[in-house]
Amino acid sequence: MKLIKNASGRLVPTEINGQTQIPFKGVNKYKPTGNKAKPPIRTCIDYPEDGNKIVKSLKDALKKAGLKDGMTISTHHHLRNGDIVTNLLFDTIKEMGVKNIRWFPSASFPVHSYLIKYLEDGTIHHIEGSMNGPLGKFTSEGKMKGVGVLRSHGGRYQSVQDGEVHIDIAVIAAPTADPFGNATGDRGPSGCGLLGFALADSEYADRVIIVTDNLIPFPCVPWQIQGNNVDFVVKVDLLGDTSKIVSGTTEITKSPDRLLIAEYVAQFLDEAGIMKDGFSFQAGAGGTALAFAIFLKERMKAKNIKARFIRGGSTKYLVQMLEEGLTDYILDGQTFDLEGVRSMRENPNHVNTSPFTSYNFHGKGNFASIVDSAILGATEVDINFNANVVTHSDGLLLHGIGGWQNCLHSKCTILAVPSFRDRIPVIVDEVTTLCGPGELIDVIATERGLCINPRRKDLLKAMKNSSIPVNDIKDLKKEVDKICGGAPAKPKLNKDKVVAIVKWVDGTVLDSVFQIEE
Amino acid sequence: MKLIKNASGRLVPTEINGQTQIPFKGVNKYKPTGNKAKPPIRTCIDYPEDGNKIVKSLKDALKKAGLKDGMTISTHHHLRNGDIVTNLLFDTIKEMGVKNIRWFPSASFPVHSYLIKYLEDGTIHHIEGSMNGPLGKFTSEGKMKGVGVLRSHGGRYQSVQDGEVHIDIAVIAAPTADPFGNATGDRGPSGCGLLGFALADSEYADRVIIVTDNLIPFPCVPWQIQGNNVDFVVKVDLLGDTSKIVSGTTEITKSPDRLLIAEYVAQFLDEAGIMKDGFSFQAGAGGTALAFAIFLKERMKAKNIKARFIRGGSTKYLVQMLEEGLTDYILDGQTFDLEGVRSMRENPNHVNTSPFTSYNFHGKGNFASIVDSAILGATEVDINFNANVVTHSDGLLLHGIGGWQNCLHSKCTILAVPSFRDRIPVIVDEVTTLCGPGELIDVIATERGLCINPRRKDLLKAMKNSSIPVNDIKDLKKEVDKICGGAPAKPKLNKDKVVAIVKWVDGTVLDSVFQIEE
Repeated sequence: MKLIKNASGRLVPTEINGQTQIPFKGVNKYKPTGNKAKPPIRTCIDYPEDGNKIVKSLKDALKKAGLKDGMTISTHHHLRNGDIVTNLLFDTIKEMGVKNIRWFPSASFPVHSYLIKYLEDGTIHHIEGSMNGPLGKFTSEGKMKGVGVLRSHGGRYQSVQDGEVHIDIAVIAAPTADPFGNATGDRGPSGCGLLGFALADSEYADRVIIVTDNLIPFPCVPWQIQGNNVDFVVKVDLLGDTSKIVSGTTEITKSPDRLLIAEYVAQFLDEAGIMKDGFSFQAGAGGTALAFAIFLKERMKAKNIKARFIRGGSTKYLVQMLEEGLTDYILDGQTFDLEGVRSMRENPNHVNTSPFTSYNFHGKGNFASIVDSAILGATEVDINFNANVVTHSDGLLLHGIGGWQNCLHSKCTILAVPSFRDRIPVIVDEVTTLCGPGELIDVIATERGLCINPRRKDLLKAMKNSSIPVNDIKDLKKEVDKICGGAPAKPKLNKDKVVAIVKWVDGTVLDSVFQIEE
Repeated sequence: MKLIKNASGRLVPTEINGQTQIPFKGVNKYKPTGNKAKPPIRTCIDYPEDGNKIVKSLKDALKKAGLKDGMTISTHHHLRNGDIVTNLLFDTIKEMGVKNIRWFPSASFPVHSYLIKYLEDGTIHHIEGSMNGPLGKFTSEGKMKGVGVLRSHGGRYQSVQDGEVHIDIAVIAAPTADPFGNATGDRGPSGCGLLGFALADSEYADRVIIVTDNLIPFPCVPWQIQGNNVDFVVKVDLLGDTSKIVSGTTEITKSPDRLLIAEYVAQFLDEAGIMKDGFSFQAGAGGTALAFAIFLKERMKAKNIKARFIRGGSTKYLVQMLEEGLTDYILDGQTFDLEGVRSMRENPNHVNTSPFTSYNFHGKGNFASIVDSAILGATEVDINFNANVVTHSDGLLLHGIGGWQNCLHSKCTILAVPSFRDRIPVIVDEVTTLCGPGELIDVIATERGLCINPRRKDLLKAMKNSSIPVNDIKDLKKEVDKICGGAPAKPKLNKDKVVAIVKWVDGTVLDSVFQIEE
């Protein structure tokens, strides 16, 4: 495998899994040429006139879809750790004797560690999509046949739209669907909220199979997935373990350090003048992000400020803000708890978005860069504000990128991270894996205060008299190293063996993940 | 121009405007090969990061979009006869000195007779889209430089999707929009309901311009047109004459004959067993169709029957049925009155559809064939149930096809027509222009009763003991000829000069419209 240095100085392969790769050229430096993917033209002649596309089993649907060795099969992750459809899917593929599948999930979860046996026996050749937890460890150890490809949610849409990834068969688990294939995630016993991560799949795959445990008469309204893109509908007893699809409750952090970080971020938005009438923000559903939302809410109420929109992943805390009139809209990409699902179903101002609207970098703009501030996490941040979200300092691949890279394009991107975890510094000299170029990261918020990117003189000025400590990131690193007894040990990596690559939002290769030496 | 006989025995050209044409092969006989159109890949680098795509004028937008001679410019007809944007557009194109435009509207209206001067001076080369009223007459007289192309709403989507028609610049009038280009028709001073007829344009055109008179802060919710497909946004003072965009009221026919036809159709749906719990129907917004809806409603109430869905075009009568619980949903393609617009905006069960979901024949099925019964009009019907909707018996091209051809695919298609108009028979030996093959037309309802297509033995049987007269269509023709003093005089046509072609839903050429001899 030939490796070359890309514009960020990272060694990346020029080809993987038989596909030529373009090395990262720098932020906003690579402009695509060419045209979007062009799915085959279909005709109504080949589909039932009465709109009934139900086939008797998933196996039957896969047969009719022409499943064969080496195909690319996609799934979505809206069922999260409660998903049983994907495991059923690969049981079926195994049973059919089909091999060398490229699995193209929008993300994987620990529940999918079940699939390791299919990675081992050659049913699955490799995964393109996040390899969280056990699948990541398996990959890190060099056990996967092909090379993994990590993409952001927007990058996944881009790769399908641009024809980089051709999906042969998309299998879309749908909490509610009709026989025509119209489908929604916002209702039904396995309700998960949205199905937006499957949008590209439904638009561009050669064949699309809807799998549902809640079949209703045509029309399924709303149709988050359009039946006009669907080939077959399969009824199953159960899509998943509902308690693991969405939480009944989402939990705010109880850690005093993380609460402090959350408070700092809220105070910063206020003092830097970002929190003003008509502003917008995006945070996640982690404990710190939830605490931040609550602190921010108090500040907004105190100053009588209303947001124009809040980007989800939504939780009951954002839903409360919507219902209390603190924002005009929630623009949501996924719902994390039952209140989020309810609100999406009932409130027209809780609006469905997709990786196309929100994140696709190869569109005519996207929502991510319109957002005033995005509050994100990271596993590591280096002294040049570069950040990592996929590996830990021990080199293990344990997380996906999600929408993280896409959100870096907000007007003010804040990484809210503890300065160390389990006595391992989070602030480092150089990130193990580069996921986010430092020039897009404006502020690091830790329990020790803020580090502001020197490029953002405006923010440095605005925070001059703040009560929040504002530190030079290099000083913070020294301080943290002192507390932890030095920088984290460098992982032992086999630099000849790339186990996965990290794509940038434009489809170029930002970095490589290397095999862990045993 | 070389003409050949197609599968329906009609003479059609093999090439028009420099594009090769496929003659009609028969219903469900032509299967497309190949792939969909593939728009150029764009990048966020080329669009403003803050999402503000406003440019100062339509002229500016057209310049930035690279307008030049011979381009294809598309518009939609949701502003109907109140549209002033299209006329402004061509004033601007004329002012810029650009020539030979192919104008690709989803339909045209009498207000667009203003454009005849631009057809005469070479600004517009020809029209592909309905040529209603004055533009139709202009075309019939052989005055248009190119050959017109008439497509159904579904056929228009199909032609764009399949790459038959490449739109260089789409100009989309939007009653409400944000600076990013998200746009909706369901609110704003020029509110028209939907923008679905511009969907294909927004998805496939090289450049997309939104023109709005109601600019609101991002996000414009709902976004019927997605800003991610939009290049430029232009603010103007006024989109149109609101009184002509949607009616304040829609009027039911007062003609005793038409009321009788409407009553026959309602009675037929009831007696033939089509009107049952969970059924569906589509009618139009003409006076007869409205009367039919009212008669049907009474029958539904009397028998305590609820529809699963009603297809719009919607009016206050359908809205009343939705609000009174007589249907679960209205699946709407356009709104004809203010009540329709209000309901679409306020009622989540009044659902937006598009030519893609409803009518595109080159998709994985569409809604039209799922509908239990469609009640339509016609200018002529022949003794083989073939029908015409674009020309009159005098040969003049005066109407567009609309969704008519697409609706023929319903499970029971009924043409509700008077047997004669102004003493000219509607029932004829052979239609002047073939728009709908008789095998798809099940019932002709006139003031003299029903004619049932002999292919539909089930319906003939069901109506055996009905109080509605059921006649052989040939007998009806004789009777009508007697009343009118004979069959209509054949128009004098120049059979060497095709002025327009009528496409079938699959993109093949069903018939030709010939020049009228003076």
